[in-house]
Order: sequence, then structure tokens, then C-alpha cells
Amino acid sequence: MKTIVIHAARDLRIEDTAIDRPAAGQVQIKLATGGICGSDLHYFNHGGFGAIRLREPMILGHEVSGHITELGDGVAGLKLGQLVAVSPSRPCHDCQYCNAAMYNHCLNMRFYGSAMPFPHIQGAFREVLVADAAQCAPADGLSAGEAAMAEPLAVCLHAVGRAGPLLGKSVLVTGCGPIGILCILAARRAGADLVVATDLGDFTLGMAQRAGADVVVNMAAGGDLSAYTGGKGHFDVLFECSGAAPALNAAIPALRPGATIIQLGLGGDMTLPVQAMTAKELILKGSFRFHDEFFTGVSLMQKGLIDVKPFITHTFPLDRAVEAFETAGDRSRAMKAQIAFS
Amino acid sequence: MKTIVIHAARDLRIEDTAIDRPAAGQVQIKLATGGICGSDLHYFNHGGFGAIRLREPMILGHEVSGHITELGDGVAGLKLGQLVAVSPSRPCHDCQYCNAAMYNHCLNMRFYGSAMPFPHIQGAFREVLVADAAQCAPADGLSAGEAAMAEPLAVCLHAVGRAGPLLGKSVLVTGCGPIGILCILAARRAGADLVVATDLGDFTLGMAQRAGADVVVNMAAGGDLSAYTGGKGHFDVLFECSGAAPALNAAIPALRPGATIIQLGLGGDMTLPVQAMTAKELILKGSFRFHDEFFTGVSLMQKGLIDVKPFITHTFPLDRAVEAFETAGDRSRAMKAQIAFS
Amino acid sequence: MKTIVIHAARDLRIEDTAIDRPAAGQVQIKLATGGICGSDLHYFNHGGFGAIRLREPMILGHEVSGHITELGDGVAGLKLGQLVAVSPSRPCHDCQYCNAAMYNHCLNMRFYGSAMPFPHIQGAFREVLVADAAQCAPADGLSAGEAAMAEPLAVCLHAVGRAGPLLGKSVLVTGCGPIGILCILAARRAGADLVVATDLGDFTLGMAQRAGADVVVNMAAGGDLSAYTGGKGHFDVLFECSGAAPALNAAIPALRPGATIIQLGLGGDMTLPVQAMTAKELILKGSFRFHDEFFTGVSLMQKGLIDVKPFITHTFPLDRAVEAFETAGDRSRAMKAQIAFS
Amino acid sequence: MKTIVIHAARDLRIEDTAIDRPAAGQVQIKLATGGICGSDLHYFNHGGFGAIRLREPMILGHEVSGHITELGDGVAGLKLGQLVAVSPSRPCHDCQYCNAAMYNHCLNMRFYGSAMPFPHIQGAFREVLVADAAQCAPADGLSAGEAAMAEPLAVCLHAVGRAGPLLGKSVLVTGCGPIGILCILAARRAGADLVVATDLGDFTLGMAQRAGADVVVNMAAGGDLSAYTGGKGHFDVLFECSGAAPALNAAIPALRPGATIIQLGLGGDMTLPVQAMTAKELILKGSFRFHDEFFTGVSLMQKGLIDVKPFITHTFPLDRAVEAFETAGDRSRAMKAQIAFS
Repeated sequence: MKTIVIHAARDLRIEDTAIDRPAAGQVQIKLATGGICGSDLHYFNHGGFGAIRLREPMILGHEVSGHITELGDGVAGLKLGQLVAVSPSRPCHDCQYCNAAMYNHCLNMRFYGSAMPFPHIQGAFREVLVADAAQCAPADGLSAGEAAMAEPLAVCLHAVGRAGPLLGKSVLVTGCGPIGILCILAARRAGADLVVATDLGDFTLGMAQRAGADVVVNMAAGGDLSAYTGGKGHFDVLFECSGAAPALNAAIPALRPGATIIQLGLGGDMTLPVQAMTAKELILKGSFRFHDEFFTGVSLMQKGLIDVKPFITHTFPLDRAVEAFETAGDRSRAMKAQIAFS
Repeated sequence: MKTIVIHAARDLRIEDTAIDRPAAGQVQIKLATGGICGSDLHYFNHGGFGAIRLREPMILGHEVSGHITELGDGVAGLKLGQLVAVSPSRPCHDCQYCNAAMYNHCLNMRFYGSAMPFPHIQGAFREVLVADAAQCAPADGLSAGEAAMAEPLAVCLHAVGRAGPLLGKSVLVTGCGPIGILCILAARRAGADLVVATDLGDFTLGMAQRAGADVVVNMAAGGDLSAYTGGKGHFDVLFECSGAAPALNAAIPALRPGATIIQLGLGGDMTLPVQAMTAKELILKGSFRFHDEFFTGVSLMQKGLIDVKPFITHTFPLDRAVEAFETAGDRSRAMKAQIAFS
Repeated sequence: MKTIVIHAARDLRIEDTAIDRPAAGQVQIKLATGGICGSDLHYFNHGGFGAIRLREPMILGHEVSGHITELGDGVAGLKLGQLVAVSPSRPCHDCQYCNAAMYNHCLNMRFYGSAMPFPHIQGAFREVLVADAAQCAPADGLSAGEAAMAEPLAVCLHAVGRAGPLLGKSVLVTGCGPIGILCILAARRAGADLVVATDLGDFTLGMAQRAGADVVVNMAAGGDLSAYTGGKGHFDVLFECSGAAPALNAAIPALRPGATIIQLGLGGDMTLPVQAMTAKELILKGSFRFHDEFFTGVSLMQKGLIDVKPFITHTFPLDRAVEAFETAGDRSRAMKAQIAFS
Repeated sequence: MKTIVIHAARDLRIEDTAIDRPAAGQVQIKLATGGICGSDLHYFNHGGFGAIRLREPMILGHEVSGHITELGDGVAGLKLGQLVAVSPSRPCHDCQYCNAAMYNHCLNMRFYGSAMPFPHIQGAFREVLVADAAQCAPADGLSAGEAAMAEPLAVCLHAVGRAGPLLGKSVLVTGCGPIGILCILAARRAGADLVVATDLGDFTLGMAQRAGADVVVNMAAGGDLSAYTGGKGHFDVLFECSGAAPALNAAIPALRPGATIIQLGLGGDMTLPVQAMTAKELILKGSFRFHDEFFTGVSLMQKGLIDVKPFITHTFPLDRAVEAFETAGDRSRAMKAQIAFS
């Protein structure tokens, strides 16, 4: 079978590998679709990010769906041919954080396509994937592309969960890549009343409007965000999806005292107005990955309560993987780019 | 002007009263629509409920909307002719609970149409109403009937707020009168994944389905609610809207450990399985009236995020008020019955 | 070795049993002290409680401490001769609630001395106990009697945890048996400002005072609890430790709107003023058993931050077990009665 | 009467001013004690801090106590000669944040001794002070010095309240000036199990030990804080009281995933490892001033539940005010320095 392997920055190869068989409790999956995530792009463009660097070839990919082709012993609740979304999160279920049900902080996490430990954790961009049955969310009724959106959607559902109740709240979203867009959808689904989104480009802001933002603001030319709170005072919650210190710094004056900032963007160190944040009693909360929200997201999509389809802007066949990666990183025309494996 | 006055059980009269003029900070409103609430029905049918009894004639009504006909001195943000939803909640802003922003527990509350203190607090079913500007939510874009739904909607938004985040949660609603129906709408708006509703009649359950319930269960013939949790385990949250002990008792086994019961129904004393509730660490939380949620509800309706129109089943002219009250109490055919004042 | 076995109501026997050896991950413990709990007393006096009935002989006891006499393979962090408090809680670590870190709701819980499943879960009143190392909290510096108080203390720490922050709050405790007394200690440790306790007898109320209650009220003669709030308004939190409906009903008018009731007492069904509780938006939260709080309690005792010693009123040798049980149930002179096994 | 007036950096004068009489609802107080706070020191040493600069002479001081010498009309609950602690917090009770009971974010706050608005808000270091009765907490049983500690204690009680329940938690405190010391006392009072404190000098760390810290760490020579968590894993809560970015940055690796940082220290902008904080899902919460906690603190001191006396290291007569200010800023020998006004 073919796999998509990153060897170094800008050295992406399609390679042949032997097909695995499922052990007890596992299933074999003929991959249908794989979405390209920002971290995949970092490996592709830069060979890593921050202190995390490629030290050996690694199969990329962690946003995947496919059809079950074989059931290992003891697997119940799944059936041959069924479309499943596959969660890339594989906590150990044995460390102190797993025992506290903080699975996204597992000390021995084996998240698909991560160069953090060595040997690296190989990813899921392979024509045939063997996964634990517990990783698989039945996705009947969804397209394979939608099912492959379950992973970034789960990231955003987790973030919304950390924000507390949103019903009737005013929400600001900074950064309108796929994570920002899915935060808009999730915040609206959770009942946000006012949603304002900022970014630096018209394509992403158009997408934000399509996702349901009441107001979009292009910050490339600056702007006073507090003008957009519709007479209701300042924002209750900020979802910071850019990882850019200027975006966060520009948003802080638009937040009401006691507001919550959910930080999703990963952008290294930042210089922040901590004194002003303290006097305003802001709450800055990190949000990282997800756990049960993967299954929740599939269910919400199946019921039509969240519609991700308009944001899958490109689908490439496997043999055009390099083009897919190049497109995925171009925010002037692409939102989510996916690869069709079959 | 005409007003709708209750004198005693089954003694409802349309009476003439002098028209008031707005003081500073107030507005005069030509009433458009008034919805009939369960407490109005208790006064109409029984002259009160529990220890609360009519001791003098009282104008009924607290779910009202109308058009502004005069602005008192110093009123800003409202204009002549504008449709407004009028909040019946008038806390004193001076007692210890108002000072703690627990306005719905104001020690000196003057909620329209309440026989609790004596002299009673007169209600809002009058052709011309003078209200504080702060009670008025501009309702541009809504019908007068929708605007008059802001009050019961606020009750349900407050209840959902007390339930904590609902995104992806499993929700059970017992009792599908107007409050149950609006809880379904509000819970879905807040992101509930599974919504199951119970009642004893087919009309209300049909309405529940229309409101978005995934499953409705007619408990008149009994039934095991745990069968309806869709393989996701038991319910996370119960909105108890019936005030009937059998409904609550039947729901308890269907809740997961640690689940939250939001009690909205008012039904006097109840005998409950407190030992079983304790062992399961259930949380029973009362929910009573609302405050800011009144304005939130108008905004959510204006944006089309909550649609109450299908649940206004009857509208009567003022001179058929008695028929309106008789219809409002008939759950085999009426959901919300309203009176058109103009 | 000798064990304390209940055969039926009032049929308590001291019986000989073979000594177990520790498997890997286990330790063998020479029991030092065992405290008698209310549930032990129910088996002793009535052969069970509610629907839970003895169907076969069962070793009693779940409040125990002792000295380690043998270490199984792979045990680290414990040493021979060391005093340990032994947690009676043995969740399966495999069910859906264990996976959610809700260990006290484990579907396969094997809590010492429980007649709930059949065959019953045998208890810990035995001269030699083999337990998992993970059940053992090192109790260096404590007396064996104090260490055996770790279990009921954990119940109360769990309850206080469910009440939210108590710093500066007004707390009411109804029922001053061992659980009520330990709730007073725990609430004070958590920073409660005003602590008022009620019961029906002078002995227990004297103990409550010794535990730090500011005010004690003997409700045998009735009484208006709201008189005891010291001008600060009504109580923020109630710890209901009696399981008696009259105690709970008498406390409700003394609570402020929005107050929290933590229900620890187990007393079957109760008739409650649900309408009044709803209008006041009270929160009734069950609290059942504990998990990590067992280890927390040992640490707090070791640091002298909680002192349980004054409340161990009686210690009997093993061969006077029947007298110990008879004394333990006499609230006119006994608080916690313990049995010295060695 | 004499007042302590700052004219510019290092220009502190004792000046005569006319004595005020109390209006209705007010009391006249013969000042007993005034504590010197960090913000007073900033005005004294630098003429302000950050963007806040002296623009006119300002009476300093906001940590004061005294004896009532005259009661204005309508004052109840206070009596002549009574010692009171006087809260410097005077919110408007009329703005949107006051209406939401977020009094510490009042848009029109008149906090004693603040150069933020112009004209400045004059402070409380005056021999005779007229204050609203609502600002006065009866302090019977306390010394005047203790009563003057109510203000910084309130700051720390507010911070502890924002941290959520601390019972059994592991707490780190960075910066052991008066605010750090009072956070140690408050965290212990709220039930913290492990308390570790850091600073750069031996005097303050000795004070931290006296306040009940289990471990103190002098970071002047560096150090790995995670070594001090006593085998319990990393810290649950950090109270950052230094306002120094190096202190916060050194503490972050010692926190467990999901831990809460309460930021009290005010130190301008900071460069923080936001990416690492996000991946660890840390929660950074500002804490600013207080409201009701002022009265709570007085009550806790009166009951002996918090003892601030050991930390009042210096008391100077009014005519040695300059020496008092010079001493107050010397962390090698002074914790809280106070001025005796009578």
C-alpha cells in the first residue's frame, strides 16, 4: 500500500509499505479521505516547529476516515464496509492523567503523525490503516470528507467546552483558518448570540461569514474591535485561533472585565499586557486537542446540527499529494484541503 | 382602556380603567399581544395556587408586547411606534439580592400579575401599558406574537443557563407544555445532541417533535426511558417542566450518575427517592424566572436562531378573552394561546 | 486469624479464617484498628437497610488501619512495619464511569463489607488483611485510631469538595454523628466563617462544639434556624448528615436563595417542599463515598490541619466486638467507637 | 488635622487640612492605623507606575482602621468609639458592572489614593476620616493594626476565591511580600495541603515559613520547583504575587496540566511561553482588588481563623511617616509597615 511520508522540509514522498492485519479489538480500514492540518504543513514546509523537529521519516496525517475491511476478534458495534471517522488520539489509559480522565494530557500519548517522541509516532496517511475499534466513530450518513473533519471539529468542540456556557454570549474569533471557522460553527451551535471574526485576508473572512459570523473585520488595516459589540458591551469570550501575538493583543481591549480567552493557536512565546489583563481579571485558558468530543462531533454532523461541507474547498487524489500540501497552506484560496485515498 | 381582571375562580371580566402617562424614564405602550401563562390559568381556574390566593381583583398577564406611543423624559434607545417586548420583572435594585445581581430573588419584586404580596401586583393585560424603558426590549423584525413569547423563552434560557454547557449532551425534557417546548428549543440551541421528551398526550408530543426532539415518549402507558439514550449511556440533564412527581420519579433511573435535574415545574411538595438520588450524586437545581435572559431571547429570535412561531397555536381578540383562557388550558389542542389587544 | 462476621440481625460472631498471602502489587497487613460505621450498625441491628439485605454471612468493616507485614512483588513506596490507612474502595478501573474518573460510581465496585451484590463483598474486620498497594495510604506519625478515621473523613472531604469554595461562607450541618462532626472539621478547614450545627441530643452537640461549630441548636424542642445566621443573612451551604426528612425540611427556610444542600445522609424516600426549593433556586446535590480524598485526608491529619482524635470516644478489644457495636450505636455517649485488632 | 500627601517622587509631606463632618449615612472616624501598600510606595518612590502618574498632590493610603467619633443621620449597626476597618473601595452602584455585582470593575470607582482619574481620588492617611457606613466593618476584638490589614487580606481572599476549591490542593506562591504572605495564610485557611513559596531573599522566605508554607525556595540561585511537590505530582494552583516575569516563567514547568495561575502581581507586560501554556491547558486568571471579601476577612481575623499579627513588623508614629515609607520598601527587614495616627 502507499503511504505519504515526510523525510525533511519540502521532501514529501509516496512510499510503499506492507499492509497490517488487525489484532484483537482492532479493525482494518481502507482509507477514504485524509485532511491536511496545520501541523502537517509545518512538517512539510519547515521539517517541524519550535523544538519539535523531524529526526527520521514519518508518515503524516491525523484527520482521516475510511471504510472497514476487516474486524479483529472481539470487535462489536462496527461492521464491514461501514464508514468510520478515526480518532488519532491514542492515550495509554494507565498514567496519572489518564486515570484522572485528562486523556489529552496522557504522558504516553501516541497521537498520529507526531515527531515529539523518538521514534516518532507514525501517522494515518496510508491506504490501509489498522486502528483500535475504540478509535472509530461510525459515520453512516456522512461523506468521507465530512467524516475526516471530525478531528479538527473535535478540537473546536473541546475549546467551546472549556469556554463554559455560550448561550446568548458575545464571541470574538481571531484567525479564520479551519480551526477558526470550526470554532465559529461550534460557538453558534452552542448558542452564541453575537459572533465577530477577524483575520487578515478576504477569502478567510468570507468563509467566516458563510460559517455564520455576524460581523467580520479585516485587521490588515487595523481597526477598533470594540465598535463591533452591537451595543451589548464588550465580548464575553475570545477564541484565539491565530497563534499570533498581534491578534491577541488587539482583541484584549475589546473584552469585558472577567472575559475568557480560549487560546487554541500555537505560536511560541508571546509578549502580553499581563498587568492590564490582571486589572481586568481576564481568564486565559489553553485548549489542546480533545477526547470524547471526537464522537460528539460526528453525531452533531450526522444530525445536521453542524455543517462542515462548505469549508472543504479542495480534494486531491493521492498521487497529487504534494500539490495538496501546497494548496492547503494558501489561505488566499483554500480552507480545508483533503486527499482522496480511494 | 380595557383590562382583563380576575375577581375569583372562573370570574374573569373585561373592565375599563383610566390610561396612565409615562413618568421620566418610562414609556407608554399600546399593547399588541398578551400570552396566557400557566399561572394566569391557575388564577382563572382556581383563584390561585398553593398558599397564594386572590384577595382582591387583579389584572392578569405578564407575557406582553406592544408599540410605543409616548416616551417619558430621558428615555433613549427607543422610538415611537417601535415594537417592544416588555419584561414583567421589576426588581427593586436595592435589596441584598439585587445588590448581589440575583435579581430574580429580589425581596421586593413587583412581577406583573402576582397575588403573592397584598395589595397584589397588577398585571399587563391592558390596552395601554406604562412601563420603565429598562423593561423594554426592542423587537424590530419580530411579529407581536413572537415578541410576547420573550417572557416564557427567558424562563427557559435561564433554566438552560443553570444546566451548564449542553454542547453534545443528552437531554431529557419531562412535560411538553409551552415551557417544555421552549426548553427543547433552548437546549437544542445550546448544542444538545440527544433530546428526548415525555408527556402524557399526543398533541404536546407532536409539538415536541416539531421543536426538534429526537424521540418523544408517551408515558401514559408507562415506559422505560433508559431505552431511549441511543447507546450513549444515560441522560446528562433533565429539564423537569411538569411539576408532577410521577414524571420526576420516572426520569431519575434514566439519568447518569452526577446528572443535573433542572426543576422548572411548580407542583407543591413531592416525595422523592432521596437515598437513590444521593447514591447517584444527582444534582437537583431549581430554576425560577429570569433576568437578562429576556433580552437575550429577543435577540436570538431576531437572528432566527430560535423560532417560536409554530408554537403559538391560537390568537383571540380581546373580547373573547374567556374563550382564550379556556383554550389555553386544553393541552389536547393548544400550545400557546395569545390575546390580540390591537 | 479471627474475623468479625455478621450472620443475621444481632447475630455477630468472631470466626477463624485462613490467612491470605499478597499477590503481586499487594501487601499483607496486620490489622491495628477498625472503626464501626453506620452501615455496619445497620447490618448488626437490622440485617441490612432498605432493599439491601444479608443473604449470606459477611465479614463487616471498612474503616481500617494496620501495619504492613509482607510486600508482594513489585510493590514500591511502602515498607515493612509501616502504618497504613487502607481504603475500602476498589473500583474496576474499566467501566465507563471509571474511564470518566467517576470512580465512586464504578459499575463493578467491590467496597469492603457490602451486601449489595451477591455473593457479598467481604469486609476488612480481620486480623490479617491482604490489600492492593494502591489502597494503602502511608500513615506515619498518626495513631492507628486516627488512621482508621481516614475513611469517614474522606466521605466528608468529598462532600466539601462538592460544595464549591467555602472560604468565608456560612455553613449549616444537620446531624452530628461522626459524619456530621467530620463535615464540621472539613468545612472549617476549607475556610467556612460561620458554622451552625443541629441535632436532637446534647452529647453530639457538645461534640459539634468541640469540632468548632460556632453555634449548636438542639432541634428536639424546635427552633428557628434563621436566628443563628449572625446578621449575615441565611446559610450558603447545608451539609445534611442525618438522612432525616424533618432535619432537611427544617433547614430549608434558613438557606439563602441559590444555596447548596449537600445530602450525605441516607434515609430512603423523603417528602420535600420542591416548589419552595424551586422558587428559591436551591441546589440539592448528593454526595456518595469518595476517591482521592482518602489520601488527602491522611495528609491533612499528618500535618495537624485536621484533628480527629477527640471524636474517637471508645476503643474495644476484638473479643468485645459485640459490646463495641452496641456502644457505637448509642449517640448519648459514643461518637466513633473502634475495635483494636492488635 | 494632619494628612500624608505625596507631591512628587520622594516628596512626601505632612499637611494640615480641615476636618470633615459626616453626612447622612456616613461616620466620622479618628484614624488609628494606616498600612503602607506597594502602590503607596510606587507613588513615594517613582511618582506613579506605568502610565499612572501623579498630576496633583494626593493624600496617600487605603489600608486603614480607626474609632468612630460621630454618626451621621440614619446610620445603624455602628456605635461611637467602636473600632472599624474601613474599606477603600467605593463603587458607584450604578454602572453596568456594578449592576452585574462586579463591583471591583466599577467604571466610576473612587478607590482611596488612586491617581488613575484626574482629579485624583484622595486617600485615607488623615487623622480624621469621613466614610460611608457601608465601608466600615466593625472590628471589635482586633487591634487597630490587625484591622488595618483587612484591605490586603481582602485582596488575597478574593484571589483565593477565584482559584476555586483549595481543600487538599498543592499550592505554589511566588513572591513573599505582604500579598504573598497573606495568600499563604488564605490558601492554608481554605484547606491547601501542600504550600510552597518562592522569593529571592531570606527575610521574606522566613516570613513565608512562619505563615505556614511547608517549603520555601530561594530562587536567587535558581532551582527546580518540581522537586518540591512531595511526590504528589505538580502544583494545582499558583498565586503569582511578584509581578515579575522570571518568577512566573520559572513556575510554569512546576504546574500540572490544567492548573490555575492566579495573577495578583502587577508588573506591566510580560513575555510568556503561551504555546507551552496552551498545550498544558493552563488557566491564567487575573485577580484585582475585592468587594465583600473585606468583611469576610475581618470576621476570619476576629475568630482567630487567620492571624496576621506576626507580619506587621513595623509601626511608626505619624511624624515619622517618611521613615515608615523608607522602611516599608525594604524587603530585607520589613513585611508590613504601618503608621499609628493616634
